[in-house]
Amino acid sequence: MYSEKVMDHFMNPRNVGEIENASGVGTVGNAKCGDIMRMYLDIDDNGIINDVKFKTFGCGAAVATSSMATELVKGKTIQQALEVTNKAVMEALDGLPPVKVHCSLLAEEAIHAALWDYAEKH
Amino acid sequence: MYSEKVMDHFMNPRNVGEIENASGVGTVGNAKCGDIMRMYLDIDDNGIINDVKFKTFGCGAAVATSSMATELVKGKTIQQALEVTNKAVMEALDGLPPVKVHCSLLAEEAIHAALWDYAEKH
Ligand code: FES
Repeated sequence: MYSEKVMDHFMNPRNVGEIENASGVGTVGNAKCGDIMRMYLDIDDNGIINDVKFKTFGCGAAVATSSMATELVKGKTIQQALEVTNKAVMEALDGLPPVKVHCSLLAEEAIHAALWDYAEKH
Repeated sequence: MYSEKVMDHFMNPRNVGEIENASGVGTVGNAKCGDIMRMYLDIDDNGIINDVKFKTFGCGAAVATSSMATELVKGKTIQQALEVTNKAVMEALDGLPPVKVHCSLLAEEAIHAALWDYAEKH
């Protein structure tokens, strides 16, 4: 049902946690399943995402996509991070079952919300 | 949104793992969200559940209810374990938001499936 990469990122999720005094924080909820996610970004003066952490109450698919998404935006510019879609994240994970695609949206939405929070503060 | 007990069992889930050569194993899926769970029971000659472990790909609510459910059936007889409903588990957790009630069904169904597996083998 799940690819090896999904299982790897579910069993050993990368970048779980919080960032104190983060440059941007995004919290989103998923109406379909009621799950929530929070994404923390640390962005330097050159607009580079130096660090990113997430916390979620979501399922294994939400954990795996967030883990992969944080890996994909780390070290990138804000513009590059905005181009990391949930489609790109799912491809990097070798796919997700259709019923779990809505879970992958949490990561994309939380990153966008955190970038928006950063933009509003600067 | 979530009670302290739910957060406690989500952050520090009890009885996560597998039991080798378990007396009964139950695997169930949740049609609503596509999540899966497996429950392992170790039942002694007197019909007492000596040990119980679970693994799930489900969300935080699924983790918390499974964790609480395993605590409630451990040390109990098969008959007593059958009486641990998802309603009892939710009450022990001080409730769950309505949108997450379907998640709590995974634990009850997985325990029943594992007891059924045990009964078929004996
Ligand atoms: S949303 Fe699937 S188990 Fe909770």
